[in-house]
Amino acid sequence: MIVLALDPPPSTDPERWCRSILSRVFGHPALAGVKIGLPAIVARGLSWVQSVLRDARDLLKVADLKLADVGAIMRIVLENLASAGFDAAILHAFVGREGALDEAADWAKSHGVKLIAVVSMSHPGSRQFIDRHTSEMVETCLSLGFWGFVAPATRVDMIKLVRKLAPSAKILSPGVGAQGARPGDALRAGADYEIVGRAITRAPDPREAMNRIAEEQRRALESLNR
Amino acid sequence: MIVLALDPPPSTDPERWCRSILSRVFGHPALAGVKIGLPAIVARGLSWVQSVLRDARDLLKVADLKLADVGAIMRIVLENLASAGFDAAILHAFVGREGALDEAADWAKSHGVKLIAVVSMSHPGSRQFIDRHTSEMVETCLSLGFWGFVAPATRVDMIKLVRKLAPSAKILSPGVGAQGARPGDALRAGADYEIVGRAITRAPDPREAMNRIAEEQRRALESLNR
Repeated sequence: MIVLALDPPPSTDPERWCRSILSRVFGHPALAGVKIGLPAIVARGLSWVQSVLRDARDLLKVADLKLADVGAIMRIVLENLASAGFDAAILHAFVGREGALDEAADWAKSHGVKLIAVVSMSHPGSRQFIDRHTSEMVETCLSLGFWGFVAPATRVDMIKLVRKLAPSAKILSPGVGAQGARPGDALRAGADYEIVGRAITRAPDPREAMNRIAEEQRRALESLNR
Repeated sequence: MIVLALDPPPSTDPERWCRSILSRVFGHPALAGVKIGLPAIVARGLSWVQSVLRDARDLLKVADLKLADVGAIMRIVLENLASAGFDAAILHAFVGREGALDEAADWAKSHGVKLIAVVSMSHPGSRQFIDRHTSEMVETCLSLGFWGFVAPATRVDMIKLVRKLAPSAKILSPGVGAQGARPGDALRAGADYEIVGRAITRAPDPREAMNRIAEEQRRALESLNR
């Protein structure tokens, strides 16, 4: 399954760009969700987001701000994100439980918002601090009722580790396409969703690109079951 | 010295609110800078920020998004922040050097933007992961030419540690006032700036509140020199 990263190029109207891409791929059987990142939200705020998320209907709608603040600040931002129509948000697990993740989790539980924790990242620097705590971060977030985790498609060992620690949590994997991982690599390692952006959104025909990627995913999983 | 946290209440017009507060305290000898945080920028984007930062003239203008992403994403956001008039930005050191902090530092150096790294936070959960790496994070950021660090006024031992490791870097300390630290506590421990928000912005007379805080800071430093 694919979560589509909608990252509008800087000089475009983000609302029009996102809706146009979405209209071309909506209804594709491999499309499970959409993700909007920090750059587009910082530049324009949340007002344009609402109509895009309305178009996304019952797809998973993920806000990828990688929140990493004290609980009080994260709650204000989560409230804003939920009002705009997001039903899931990505947070950094490294801010720790007390006064940060616990307060976000309390708020999210009572408002039906899914929390997704970053427990490893795709760049080499992730090894310096973050990856040294992946197991402990997964356990902390599981005990707080987090819905899912982010682990990079470029490093399948991290996906396998998270899957082992959290058999029933959802795992989202960025890094497919432009960052080097092949479609299906993360799914084979135990991820539920591969986050794909430019490989689809910048393709001449986004739906055709999604077809191709879904087919690669299917074949990768098939080879696993053989 | 004070860096004023401009956190507009949710239902206000952020531009009008920030400019109104700023007009009442601008020119105060203790006012060194202003800081704008994630909630206001997420809600409304950056378009309203420009006029506020123009009013702030030669004060330090800090964007507090606590960036924690891969280098490519942080650079796009830093570009947006610089275009809006910010001259400093707060990042999480936790994301690590390679492919994250190093790329942000390269960009910042060539664009004259000051980078400030979070190396400890004010909530208890900071001890779980972040504080275990404060020394190593300070060293990484120093080697990349970071301008300053964030360490909490509520835990002066962390400020002292950062000051020891980074004698000539700037240290900004949040947590004064509403979060419990007294004005002057962080300065005595080696911080350069105390970040103060509601204790000034929600006071009936913000300039009078700033007077009082500056006087407390002065007395705290004086008692140190005795």
